[in-house]
Amino acid sequence: MPCDIDRFLEDLDTLRRIGAYKTGVHRPTYSPQDMESRHWLAARLAEAGLEPTIDGIGNVFGRHKGEGPHVLAGSHLETQNHAGWLDGALGVVSALALARAGLPVDVCAYADEESHFGGGFLGSRSLVGALSDANIDAATNRYDGTPLRTALAQAGLAGRPRLALEQDRYLGAFEMHIEQGTQLERAGKRIGVVSGIVGVRQWLISFEGKQDHTGGTTMEERRDAGLAAVRFLAALDEAFPRIRGERSTWTTGRIALDPNAPHVIPGRAEVTFQFRDISDAVLDRMEDCLRALVLEANRRDRCPATLSPIARIEPALCEERFQQAFASAAEEIAPGCAQAMPSGAIHDSQLIARKLPMAMLFVPSKDGVSHHWTEDTDRDDLALGMKVLFEGVRRILA
Amino acid sequence: MPCDIDRFLEDLDTLRRIGAYKTGVHRPTYSPQDMESRHWLAARLAEAGLEPTIDGIGNVFGRHKGEGPHVLAGSHLETQNHAGWLDGALGVVSALALARAGLPVDVCAYADEESHFGGGFLGSRSLVGALSDANIDAATNRYDGTPLRTALAQAGLAGRPRLALEQDRYLGAFEMHIEQGTQLERAGKRIGVVSGIVGVRQWLISFEGKQDHTGGTTMEERRDAGLAAVRFLAALDEAFPRIRGERSTWTTGRIALDPNAPHVIPGRAEVTFQFRDISDAVLDRMEDCLRALVLEANRRDRCPATLSPIARIEPALCEERFQQAFASAAEEIAPGCAQAMPSGAIHDSQLIARKLPMAMLFVPSKDGVSHHWTEDTDRDDLALGMKVLFEGVRRILA
Repeated sequence: MPCDIDRFLEDLDTLRRIGAYKTGVHRPTYSPQDMESRHWLAARLAEAGLEPTIDGIGNVFGRHKGEGPHVLAGSHLETQNHAGWLDGALGVVSALALARAGLPVDVCAYADEESHFGGGFLGSRSLVGALSDANIDAATNRYDGTPLRTALAQAGLAGRPRLALEQDRYLGAFEMHIEQGTQLERAGKRIGVVSGIVGVRQWLISFEGKQDHTGGTTMEERRDAGLAAVRFLAALDEAFPRIRGERSTWTTGRIALDPNAPHVIPGRAEVTFQFRDISDAVLDRMEDCLRALVLEANRRDRCPATLSPIARIEPALCEERFQQAFASAAEEIAPGCAQAMPSGAIHDSQLIARKLPMAMLFVPSKDGVSHHWTEDTDRDDLALGMKVLFEGVRRILA
Repeated sequence: MPCDIDRFLEDLDTLRRIGAYKTGVHRPTYSPQDMESRHWLAARLAEAGLEPTIDGIGNVFGRHKGEGPHVLAGSHLETQNHAGWLDGALGVVSALALARAGLPVDVCAYADEESHFGGGFLGSRSLVGALSDANIDAATNRYDGTPLRTALAQAGLAGRPRLALEQDRYLGAFEMHIEQGTQLERAGKRIGVVSGIVGVRQWLISFEGKQDHTGGTTMEERRDAGLAAVRFLAALDEAFPRIRGERSTWTTGRIALDPNAPHVIPGRAEVTFQFRDISDAVLDRMEDCLRALVLEANRRDRCPATLSPIARIEPALCEERFQQAFASAAEEIAPGCAQAMPSGAIHDSQLIARKLPMAMLFVPSKDGVSHHWTEDTDRDDLALGMKVLFEGVRRILA
């Protein structure tokens, strides 16, 4: 059976109306709109001949009823607040289209990839056995503090069992997603064959100074923790470019001075810093550099710096032969349209990669916008992505 | 009449009990404790033979009933929240002691030097004609937003006229204060003969970048406003030492990134920066340097920087002959105990200086602590300060 591209686009348009907000969508995890979208998907899965389940964490799963070998495909249904219509939805609806085209595909919408609840990635973590009942008991909504257990109960999911991934059932897992960057657009490409998903290492660096009066305290005697943080970050800004990988990113998202008042020398400063790369060797190099900078700061500066790891996610490489299948499919369908590239953003596929070989495909994000209601991709690019995904998965299954 | 040092110390101890908090004092402007201290002072002024008034902005004024020439002496009664027992109280009680010793002194406790109400220095500004009714209408309490008019009414001050400084009445104005720094302690000195009060220029520097995803946005394409702020502050940290005055201070008290979230490239950053010096030439040099750094940032960086002045206070030099009188008094009473030094902190005397020649004396702050309930000064140093103040003012009047 060929892949019904028109139906695929219609499904995206239909799903877009659930929780619509301007030209985007507001579907926070387990909200009424989010649950409506989950029930909508379950009905579509049944129509496509799959056995639908909504499990105890909200994963929507469609199990292919025929013989294998099988593949798994999907993404997420919920959105960031007041965000876009394609982030997650694209991967879910394209997976549905694969199933409808008769491929032996299980479809999954993994719950809370958008991390409304502390920890995040609840659905994919649950599937791969990385979400305990204690984790669920402890998790709360990071916008309003609602306990996850409460939200699950209100969504009608309390007491349902949680599905586990049947590792031996699948050849691999696939996810199509918007790029959430501008690399495809800038390069004039229409398909991103993802080489892997970056690992992330996140840190808290804190500086201890002495809170004091800005006027009464001389420059020589003061211990300004804010200035220590600035000097450290400036040194980091010089050092990292020398040891980076080609596509590494590093970012200080948050700086917090205490008391952060105009007339007071900051007695304390905190910096939240992270770096990302697809290569463990590069990540280790960046970590070594960071540690060396902290040692040097403590040698030179008068405000002791302390480095604490906050979080760590391992890189996940995409299966080589899957990449080749997608690359050749793209080359056949629209020659010159594709490029290889890493994913700088974390996806459910990174969790699934713990159990299965996986691959991802990107379509362009207009102006790189994501997590905003203006997020968009040309319909022609969406259609091309669907065709490449279908042809690539078909080749992998053959 | 000699100066009654014991009575001076007793008065400090009595005043300390009004609004006592641990070993310090909590007397926010116009609070019940603050008003109690004002009425206490008015009674003490009457006892000392002065004509007491509490004016429409809360200034407590004691007018000497005899012939001139007169001098003006005082400081402030209110405290920072949960702060010390001497900051302001020392200057008020020492002025009372001068009056009680029979010197032709008018005594004033200037309202809200501690700036609980927006703008601050209400009392001294009012006396020198720099506080309009419109200013009062607009001012609110910066901790809880209470309108100043409401606070004045609740304190029983509504409708009272505000006093104006009679410029021709006085030879000069004097204020004794704790140092609020550690220079006297470090130098082993017990008296600071203040050379002048620094001028302050305060600025807002804002940086416009582009908010984006930390992982999906390459280093080459991102416009990180937080990084632009760090680079700017690092350049400032290198440049200012080269053009500073000997006792200049410069401080970044506040850094605000937007959205200040760990996984988001900051799209905007604001820095609140100030510098202080006693010399206009040095202040101008620092301002020129700051402006040049902003120009350079806009030449090199991709996040436009904007410089906006927030506030400006002019330096106020202490009258040379008053300084000499205090220095020689100190040398006679306790040889080698005094040093000349600027005041890095702003005081009411800076406002009074617009109308009168003035001088200030400092006593040591133990460990430089101020604006905290552990603030303290040895009783021997308090006594020495009182003796030097008395002898100095006596010589000036002679």
